[in-house]
Amino acid sequence: MKVAILGTGMVGRVIATKLRMLNHQVILGTRSVENTLNNEKKDAYGNVSFKEWHLQNSDIELKTFADAAYEAEILFNCTGGGVSLAALEAAGKSNLDGKVLIDLANPLDFSNGMPPTLNPVNTDSLGEQIQRKFPMLKVVKTLNTMNAGLMVDPGKLKGDHNVFICGNDEAAKATAREVLQSMGWKPNLIIDLGDITNARGTEMLLPIWLRLWNALETAEFNFHIQKN
Amino acid sequence: MKVAILGTGMVGRVIATKLRMLNHQVILGTRSVENTLNNEKKDAYGNVSFKEWHLQNSDIELKTFADAAYEAEILFNCTGGGVSLAALEAAGKSNLDGKVLIDLANPLDFSNGMPPTLNPVNTDSLGEQIQRKFPMLKVVKTLNTMNAGLMVDPGKLKGDHNVFICGNDEAAKATAREVLQSMGWKPNLIIDLGDITNARGTEMLLPIWLRLWNALETAEFNFHIQKN
Repeated sequence: MKVAILGTGMVGRVIATKLRMLNHQVILGTRSVENTLNNEKKDAYGNVSFKEWHLQNSDIELKTFADAAYEAEILFNCTGGGVSLAALEAAGKSNLDGKVLIDLANPLDFSNGMPPTLNPVNTDSLGEQIQRKFPMLKVVKTLNTMNAGLMVDPGKLKGDHNVFICGNDEAAKATAREVLQSMGWKPNLIIDLGDITNARGTEMLLPIWLRLWNALETAEFNFHIQKN
Repeated sequence: MKVAILGTGMVGRVIATKLRMLNHQVILGTRSVENTLNNEKKDAYGNVSFKEWHLQNSDIELKTFADAAYEAEILFNCTGGGVSLAALEAAGKSNLDGKVLIDLANPLDFSNGMPPTLNPVNTDSLGEQIQRKFPMLKVVKTLNTMNAGLMVDPGKLKGDHNVFICGNDEAAKATAREVLQSMGWKPNLIIDLGDITNARGTEMLLPIWLRLWNALETAEFNFHIQKN
């Protein structure tokens, strides 16, 4: 499959590397190819600069949001939640229409300090905003409730844990499920919540996720829905 | 211990029955003793009327919020989130000062239909509102992230699952922990998130809890934080 990953941060890189390993053709999308290629700064979490990362992953192409989206059969939104709508606008409606977008972003607002708050929240969600703005794009919200390392390697945790999925298009959700299973997610641990309005529920897990990260002193944990 | 439980709905009754079974003296607090005692209506979930329930639990006293709070050493807020502040005001500041309040309520707002939204949310929480309004009350937020049956009988689920706890007063949290343990919660499954602002995180679990209730077609599930 030809996959476009919008966003070149930690999450985008982890997803890109995994999909490349699974033999997909992977294109990373960015606002300015030149700026991203020349970026020699580590990120806020101390991850290597894009330039350094790309030297070791040179088989992953870097293109503009529009060029990446144009070529892709399926897209991943791995941009920051605050810039996701702008990134998708730059990708261009005509390059998105009819395609599946797997949305991993959370609308974290850092403007009031740490921990970040959510915007939108409660009566709306980023997943719904994207779906409303691009009605012909098939948005599937998933993977947004855990650390990037666990997204692509759920077996890192010994016990069972879940990934949530929601979206309006059943065929798109089936595609997302296949992608998840190829990454190691067991079918019975993928919980389908229903339509895209359920993104309100999964995005609103972030406030406790951030607090658990602090309380547990590790990001390597995930939610497991325990039932008999 | 002399325990006051504010609220005579499902959650209040379940907590009351359990604490009575554990040999505590339990007083239920309500706005109007007469109205509650004469209430012959089933609730929205089809639970028996208070009148009927009380016939079978006549050793649990029913008093006004103020009388119940006055006598109690420790209090449980089991009122609906939308009326919790009014109930505590009726209980009276002087009857609350210096005491521990275990707050189980969620600020669910049903005015926009189902599923309910949260109010306050994101930048504030009901736990914090209560703590701000009654600075001498020691608010501990806990048990608000699950079905009432599981609160008092965590062993109902075969696998591990967690209860969250937060509050500003360490001694009050220790008291709450003892209560939780007496109800069957293993110490290692009680996750202390820190101060009362963390109630934002646990209250914001409700939107996904409600959606999981729908998706799983049972309320008998709980969050387990999976980690190695």
